[in-house]
Amino acid sequence: MKKTSKLLLLIVFMITLGFTKKAQAQDKNAVIRIAKLYIDSAQLDNYKAALQEEIEASVRIEKGVLSLYAVADKKNPTHITVFEIYANQEAYLAHLKTPHFLKYKTTTKDMVKSLELMETNPIALKAKRKLKGIN
Amino acid sequence: MKKTSKLLLLIVFMITLGFTKKAQAQDKNAVIRIAKLYIDSAQLDNYKAALQEEIEASVRIEKGVLSLYAVADKKNPTHITVFEIYANQEAYLAHLKTPHFLKYKTTTKDMVKSLELMETNPIALKAKRKLKGIN
Repeated sequence: MKKTSKLLLLIVFMITLGFTKKAQAQDKNAVIRIAKLYIDSAQLDNYKAALQEEIEASVRIEKGVLSLYAVADKKNPTHITVFEIYANQEAYLAHLKTPHFLKYKTTTKDMVKSLELMETNPIALKAKRKLKGIN
Repeated sequence: MKKTSKLLLLIVFMITLGFTKKAQAQDKNAVIRIAKLYIDSAQLDNYKAALQEEIEASVRIEKGVLSLYAVADKKNPTHITVFEIYANQEAYLAHLKTPHFLKYKTTTKDMVKSLELMETNPIALKAKRKLKGIN
């Protein structure tokens, strides 16, 4: 192999290594939470509408809100789970101060019967298309 | 506006409507499950390695496995949650018969102390980049 080819290969290798390290650092910083909520059944439709609005705005507007997945238990539709991924702690704290999040908190205050938050560590996060800063 | 421009606009509108309808149909068919597992603490590292291998293979090989997110509770690291999205019921059933899934089931049989599966309905699924067939 020529000297220039070897040098080029080394540069490509270093760049790849750099990207991998950066991706790993982002994974490490990611804040992943699971929120479990019990909702007043009489207000379930209103609650869902408020949650949908808040999730749509958060992922669209906030750079550091990577994904928000909200689902309802088929057997107990008032039991809601939200799987949340933020780029880092700063992004999570900033999210709590946004107008759309504060509006959601105020609107749903009397709809939420209980809220349990679980902080988690990732084991594997794989999706068909890579999320920004994750995978 | 010219007649041709109006016609062009109508065609673009119809195509957009078609795509939206298709996306909605895919959302409706998606199978979204949450698996909660308690793992034997003495075998936690081995379990995590087996789960990582299974998740990596499933999302890479299977067209209908859209995302698999596995996390551990920070307070109870043996408590694991997997948030699973499949394109439809057929994709989910096919997944259960794949060699990598069967290998995972056999390997981890004596590591898993309990397994609870929750079938869910989506309320909102938003991510920075769209998952294939979802959003």
